[in-house]
Amino acid sequence: MLPKGFFASGTHCGIKRFKKDLALIYSKSGCKAAGVFTKNKLKAAPLVISKLTLKKGAPIRAVIVNSGNANCCTGRYGIRDAKRMINAVSSLMGLKFGNILVSSTGIIGKRLQIGLIEAAVPKLTRGLSAKGLVSAANALLTTDRKVKIATEKFKVGRKEIIITGIAKGAGMVHPNMATMLSFIMTDARIDKDALTSALKEACRVSFNAISIDGDMSPNDTVLILANGLAGNGTIKRGTKEYRAFVKALKNVSFKLAKNIVEDGEGATKFVTVYVENAVTERDAEKVARMIANSCLVKTSIHGENPNWGRVASSVGSSGAAGIKPNKFEIYLDGVLLFKRGKFTTPGRDKISKVYKRKNVEITVNLNAGRKNAVIWTCDLSKRYVEINSHYMT
Amino acid sequence: MLPKGFFASGTHCGIKRFKKDLALIYSKSGCKAAGVFTKNKLKAAPLVISKLTLKKGAPIRAVIVNSGNANCCTGRYGIRDAKRMINAVSSLMGLKFGNILVSSTGIIGKRLQIGLIEAAVPKLTRGLSAKGLVSAANALLTTDRKVKIATEKFKVGRKEIIITGIAKGAGMVHPNMATMLSFIMTDARIDKDALTSALKEACRVSFNAISIDGDMSPNDTVLILANGLAGNGTIKRGTKEYRAFVKALKNVSFKLAKNIVEDGEGATKFVTVYVENAVTERDAEKVARMIANSCLVKTSIHGENPNWGRVASSVGSSGAAGIKPNKFEIYLDGVLLFKRGKFTTPGRDKISKVYKRKNVEITVNLNAGRKNAVIWTCDLSKRYVEINSHYMT
Repeated sequence: MLPKGFFASGTHCGIKRFKKDLALIYSKSGCKAAGVFTKNKLKAAPLVISKLTLKKGAPIRAVIVNSGNANCCTGRYGIRDAKRMINAVSSLMGLKFGNILVSSTGIIGKRLQIGLIEAAVPKLTRGLSAKGLVSAANALLTTDRKVKIATEKFKVGRKEIIITGIAKGAGMVHPNMATMLSFIMTDARIDKDALTSALKEACRVSFNAISIDGDMSPNDTVLILANGLAGNGTIKRGTKEYRAFVKALKNVSFKLAKNIVEDGEGATKFVTVYVENAVTERDAEKVARMIANSCLVKTSIHGENPNWGRVASSVGSSGAAGIKPNKFEIYLDGVLLFKRGKFTTPGRDKISKVYKRKNVEITVNLNAGRKNAVIWTCDLSKRYVEINSHYMT
Repeated sequence: MLPKGFFASGTHCGIKRFKKDLALIYSKSGCKAAGVFTKNKLKAAPLVISKLTLKKGAPIRAVIVNSGNANCCTGRYGIRDAKRMINAVSSLMGLKFGNILVSSTGIIGKRLQIGLIEAAVPKLTRGLSAKGLVSAANALLTTDRKVKIATEKFKVGRKEIIITGIAKGAGMVHPNMATMLSFIMTDARIDKDALTSALKEACRVSFNAISIDGDMSPNDTVLILANGLAGNGTIKRGTKEYRAFVKALKNVSFKLAKNIVEDGEGATKFVTVYVENAVTERDAEKVARMIANSCLVKTSIHGENPNWGRVASSVGSSGAAGIKPNKFEIYLDGVLLFKRGKFTTPGRDKISKVYKRKNVEITVNLNAGRKNAVIWTCDLSKRYVEINSHYMT
């Protein structure tokens, strides 16, 4: 469900053979906008352009996105073609270059089929509709099996505010550097500073808490647009309205992030890694990522093999502060398996239940401090190897 | 081939069902010794004891090693049982506790079957022989398919010096935290300081240059014993004899490390990752490890799919200094595929040869400085997932 004043559209321009591959998001009034981008030093051309546009700070009216080609590692053509995508929308809709963001995902190293995109933009703009969300969300997908949409509503005074996001998968989950993209829209009136910090907060516990394989794609992008049409009093940092906004935004981005993990290539399990009582939050995260990125842990979950030793080894090699072998505890699906430096021998009955469900939990209590972290990941299957052995750049 | 004055033995004590699982190395005169151990904060009991013994500095006469059980995460029994292993050898051979080192590998979290070991030590010591190397090397193995032995000879003046090592596999290569162990013997006369620094130098370009999965086992150990029976003048640091010693030691440890990678679970390819012209050696290593640990790169090699984009993405996300997308170059099996930020379109003919052989090379020229690094790894296969899904702790 689109927030007030937003319209969306998705179409097939021919980059992909049969599926939709071009999306447009449009707001009838100017939006405050913020973005979180990949930290990879290799950056795709559209990302470079969008970052610059956001920095200039003009109100954003539209986002154009293609799938099937990442417009990355495309040399001097890259920037040129990304600009042409924006210009195609700009001339047709009477917007300025600085009002439009651009994003791409798909194969890298191949010049963008810009002619196909330009030819399809008229159809794309004609298709804009308040009911166009599913169509746009579909046009983002690459190897995803399912469309990813999440919506939250909450009230500021008497005004109902809607936050809606769409996303596609990435990384370890959706490889070939297949870019995690998410576009979030809201009709909230909020100042730019508050919007930027809310997005950062939300990403930290959602998109940035998904275990990719340590790699970041050169295209990873999360954008949020806020057009203010809900008519609420402007949300500012540090207020209770701000906290309500952050909470709703976290819910949207968490749902999308969870969908991405669940839709992972070859994934059969959804894994939550909790690390508790670390010295600092960064230490907690270090341990959680070490566990979530371990091929050994991931394969043992796939095999429903309650291998606490691999978890213990990941904890020990994480490099986090305050780790003492005799102090930390490991629970798999709630069963305490490691304490005081050794196996707890909890009995066959309990052990036999570990890793059997689709939702799996690993909890490590470091007993070293008071900070926690959570990371989500999926298992590592033969199907994953199969898909990724043969997916060509 | 054992160096002068060394004897070895391997036997079956019953930890494993059928295969040899207990090894002994013995020198007829006292050895200078040095060790390199895991950095995992979780440390197996025998490793803790051996580290302490080395620190005390008495001459080393023997090393006892079992496979099949890592004596790790075994609580208060761990240290006690590791000491009992030493005592069994000490009482039978008239050596002091401080003359003997101990090491274990295998399943973790299960108490060591110390009774079986004690019962077998008499047979083990009786079996000691100058021809016992293969037998001892066999008794180290866990999931390894092949025995790993390497020997080098060189001269100091008129005296011939022998360096011989045995090893077993580890990590991503041999998982279930299956411990990389190596024991190296030499009849060189060398001072302790020189021996220690030579071992560190050699490990850096061999055992520490293998890409494990970022994990380190709590048992990882490399030990070197030098009994001085070659009769050469004592080798000291900074001399040309020292450099000859280091060179030979590097050859031995490199061969063993290479054998470990080649014998990786499910491995079908041997991969060498060269990173050239980085700002610092550490930066070069960072990039090389990022590539070598990437599941996406490893699966693409497995599928013989020349996916330079995954390599480019790993370079970009490595966090190394001086990386500029327009400056670095990627060669796969000698074919330049990425330069000036884009695909080089080298033609089907050349591309079709990439990743086809058993030995595969990835070379990244960062054009950022003058430092290089090399890392060795293997591909990621369905067989790897299969083995590791079902290997129980």
